[in-house]
Amino acid sequence: MTTSLLQVPPPQGLLRPLAVPERLLLGPGPSNVPPRILAAGGRQLLGHMHPEVLQVMDEIKVGIQYAFQTQNQLTLAISGTGHCAMEAALLNLLEHGDTVLVAVNGIWGQRAVDIARRLGADVHELLKPPGEYFAPWDIEEGLAQHKPSVLFITHGESSTGVLQPLEGLGELCHRHGCLLLVDAVASLGGAPIFMDQQEIDVLYSGSQKVLNAPPGSAPISFSERAREKMLRRKTKPPSFYLDMGWLANYWGCDGEPRRYHHTAPINSFFSLREGLAVLSELGLESSWERHRANCTLLCQGLRDLGLELFVKEEKVRLPTITTVRVPEGYNWKEITAFLMDNHAIEIAGGLGPSAGKVLRIGLMGCNSTSGNVERVLRALRDALSHLRRSRL
Amino acid sequence: MTTSLLQVPPPQGLLRPLAVPERLLLGPGPSNVPPRILAAGGRQLLGHMHPEVLQVMDEIKVGIQYAFQTQNQLTLAISGTGHCAMEAALLNLLEHGDTVLVAVNGIWGQRAVDIARRLGADVHELLKPPGEYFAPWDIEEGLAQHKPSVLFITHGESSTGVLQPLEGLGELCHRHGCLLLVDAVASLGGAPIFMDQQEIDVLYSGSQKVLNAPPGSAPISFSERAREKMLRRKTKPPSFYLDMGWLANYWGCDGEPRRYHHTAPINSFFSLREGLAVLSELGLESSWERHRANCTLLCQGLRDLGLELFVKEEKVRLPTITTVRVPEGYNWKEITAFLMDNHAIEIAGGLGPSAGKVLRIGLMGCNSTSGNVERVLRALRDALSHLRRSRL
Repeated sequence: MTTSLLQVPPPQGLLRPLAVPERLLLGPGPSNVPPRILAAGGRQLLGHMHPEVLQVMDEIKVGIQYAFQTQNQLTLAISGTGHCAMEAALLNLLEHGDTVLVAVNGIWGQRAVDIARRLGADVHELLKPPGEYFAPWDIEEGLAQHKPSVLFITHGESSTGVLQPLEGLGELCHRHGCLLLVDAVASLGGAPIFMDQQEIDVLYSGSQKVLNAPPGSAPISFSERAREKMLRRKTKPPSFYLDMGWLANYWGCDGEPRRYHHTAPINSFFSLREGLAVLSELGLESSWERHRANCTLLCQGLRDLGLELFVKEEKVRLPTITTVRVPEGYNWKEITAFLMDNHAIEIAGGLGPSAGKVLRIGLMGCNSTSGNVERVLRALRDALSHLRRSRL
Repeated sequence: MTTSLLQVPPPQGLLRPLAVPERLLLGPGPSNVPPRILAAGGRQLLGHMHPEVLQVMDEIKVGIQYAFQTQNQLTLAISGTGHCAMEAALLNLLEHGDTVLVAVNGIWGQRAVDIARRLGADVHELLKPPGEYFAPWDIEEGLAQHKPSVLFITHGESSTGVLQPLEGLGELCHRHGCLLLVDAVASLGGAPIFMDQQEIDVLYSGSQKVLNAPPGSAPISFSERAREKMLRRKTKPPSFYLDMGWLANYWGCDGEPRRYHHTAPINSFFSLREGLAVLSELGLESSWERHRANCTLLCQGLRDLGLELFVKEEKVRLPTITTVRVPEGYNWKEITAFLMDNHAIEIAGGLGPSAGKVLRIGLMGCNSTSGNVERVLRALRDALSHLRRSRL
């Protein structure tokens, strides 16, 4: 062709090479991805129905069953990030007019409220200030008052650094005829969770936290009780992509021959499979212990710097993401920028209700090491003294 | 710990290495990913709000504007596969009770009908048998009869191998006060499409076809007319993850400071950026010409083998995916299995309304070469003669 039909020319920015600097990602996620998992995601593609891919999916399924400590058949990975799993959980469980109780002590509860309202549910909020957690009697009061069919609660509140105790909540919900839905995006693999023993009905997580895979797939599992509620639906869920009936079939959870549903993010599954393999090799208990020990080390170091931890009680401190109050006289943005510019380390400010109040430091999966604790403390010390000097 | 709390042991399958054989993927997608794009996806992660990631997103945006031939500000990539983009288009455009007309001549129209019904829309179908396409008067009749606010039509019907002519449809829709929504998952980069000149209001595609990136992100763009319809919504869309108001902000399309929305599939964006860069370097017109030429070569070769093309008229044959009737006396499953087992080549059977009737051969992006045409024809000749002999 001699004359071009094109009115939009090739963009100049795309004619330059992709630039990706190396950084230590100690924010609330994504975390760094170790070479083995990066390599898995960089393998050549296969078709989404090839037997090797179906086998990888089967391995992901048993990997999630291990990580969640569940025998649930309906266990799979969503083709989207952790947030997409939250939507999948809510839109499959809830129908227009269903009553749902959401425990809100940070951004994830707020998000669940937003989504449940979009779905036409009758939403009630159980509120706690950021940094606090829910006691069984708080929950019981809410269950008795609102009689919800689903309770949403966040295990690892990454915006505030709170680890919500789950002991007894499943039994409590079931006594009130309610299902227990738990967000474990930020906590899975970093703090003990026992889906079956704790009677959790729906549990989901993400790939990019302790599992150290890139974001793009999200583990989820449904108990028999949750499955029965979905089977009783009068209307189809408002999504085909996330319809658990179809996904259960594609993931081989329903005993039927697998049908094409959508083109899965195949190499995200390769990475997730490898992240679950690393966790299986290390063992859950070692992983929990590693995250606990390095978090303790970090907290001690932060206190030694004269900083104040945002979550007072040690037993409800999230071992994967530590929140510390922004020290008086400092601007949190200057601190995070200093670490990024001078140490190539990412730490984050607050999010939602904790915005402006805290700094958040994540130590997740391969990033949870005593070396990284020392590195981030050294960088923080540098930032605090430098920024103080620059004010004098 | 001496006694384990775990009731589910580490899965044995995950303690073996990941196995991924090399294959030539000549099905309807995913296509093979060239080393440069695989390497981009294998780069170390960055945070989803880091300036380098926001820049990659800006580059994706201009890359999509080029590929779509549009100046639309509201242009971005969905954090999911092509099917997720279909949902994003429908759930943002449609509200409960909206009338939508869906042109159904294959599986994608059927899927759009399914999703639109889930959204509570008043859905009308315009039907054609698989292998056929819609003439402007077919569309006009439907528009006049049903007075829809949105028309859905598929540019590249990958289940049947039909390329739908789009000339004049935008103008026609607008004359009837209707928006034009086009699925170009299988055609983008392989056949000319001009979003602005053809007055298309919503256009989306996938990453894993001509763009040769892994599945997991999906380009989408909205015209000013489409944006205005979304702004007039009385209810929020039933998804937060795919809410175009939030996504427009995260992608810097609304002129406001970018806020955290969700953790994007960052390395899928790296791959998509690189796929768009390859297309920009090659040039759209060269890419269209390459796909046309290799499709012609393939069609000639298939006829030389005595096979019958499923789509009769050359001008409506999809240049990226060629459909050929399953030859009499053969079982399609035996043919595809023979190619896979003996030549490590994937070709596919039919899908939805074309199931059992056709074989589908994809030549997309880097896979669209005369060498691959020869390779697949040789393999098919081998399969046909071998399977015939085995019957004698």
